[in-house]
Amino acid sequence: MLYFEDFTPGRRFGYRPKAVRPADIVAFASDFDPQPMHLDEEAGRRSILGGLSASGWHTSAIGMRMMIDAFLGRSASQGSPGIDFMDWKKPVLAGDVLSGFSLVMESRPSTSRPGIGFVKFRNELTNQSGETVGVSEGSIMFRRRDRGMRP
Amino acid sequence: MLYFEDFTPGRRFGYRPKAVRPADIVAFASDFDPQPMHLDEEAGRRSILGGLSASGWHTSAIGMRMMIDAFLGRSASQGSPGIDFMDWKKPVLAGDVLSGFSLVMESRPSTSRPGIGFVKFRNELTNQSGETVGVSEGSIMFRRRDRGMRP
Repeated sequence: MLYFEDFTPGRRFGYRPKAVRPADIVAFASDFDPQPMHLDEEAGRRSILGGLSASGWHTSAIGMRMMIDAFLGRSASQGSPGIDFMDWKKPVLAGDVLSGFSLVMESRPSTSRPGIGFVKFRNELTNQSGETVGVSEGSIMFRRRDRGMRP
Repeated sequence: MLYFEDFTPGRRFGYRPKAVRPADIVAFASDFDPQPMHLDEEAGRRSILGGLSASGWHTSAIGMRMMIDAFLGRSASQGSPGIDFMDWKKPVLAGDVLSGFSLVMESRPSTSRPGIGFVKFRNELTNQSGETVGVSEGSIMFRRRDRGMRP
């Protein structure tokens, strides 16, 4: 189990590669972002994205799942107050295989809640050609090991 | 159809209210953010979020859908290069009813692609108690009306 104290600046967590299937792109878009280039191959080709492409929010959600599988799922995470920025640098196209990492940038104990601390991460996603498709930075709250189980 | 030219600074698009059902929270979390407070009512109550609460990425995706239904679905949107920030200010709990708006902050034609322009929005989500639960700012690309259909 990873606690606040384990997230020392410079520590890096690599993601396992994950394929983005056309059906997943369409399913997410149907619920949350039903724009033509996220729903239809031909509409995607006609758009500036160049093919059936994942909603940016889908790309972000996939990145979240990759973080969970890489380290967050075995941590004392207490959620996140937000993200500092999220750049969707290149389209994520149907069939792409994403990989990436989260890097600890800084950490600080909470002043208002002594049981938790904030850890700031930089998160990067790349496709199978080595192109960076997504970059974000944001903080996650973790319980502190030395303060017991309750925040 | 709304084009780049229609997004004048100060223009405001209100969202239709949308209920966040427990089953939706659990389904999204199972796919993308399987942390206990997003999967289980009791685990949520024990967390600092205070109940079964939507993943922040789910809240963001719901906000995206509310934008689509409010105006983006009838626009010449060409996608987004990213978001400047996203604050998840309060937990979104099962049963919450969200409303909100997008406000045009600024707009500029693309220098590299004469057929499109960038519009920066501020987007806010509130719950049924009038509490702001999410705030974000980011840009969306739109085709320009006077440049024809192809970017």
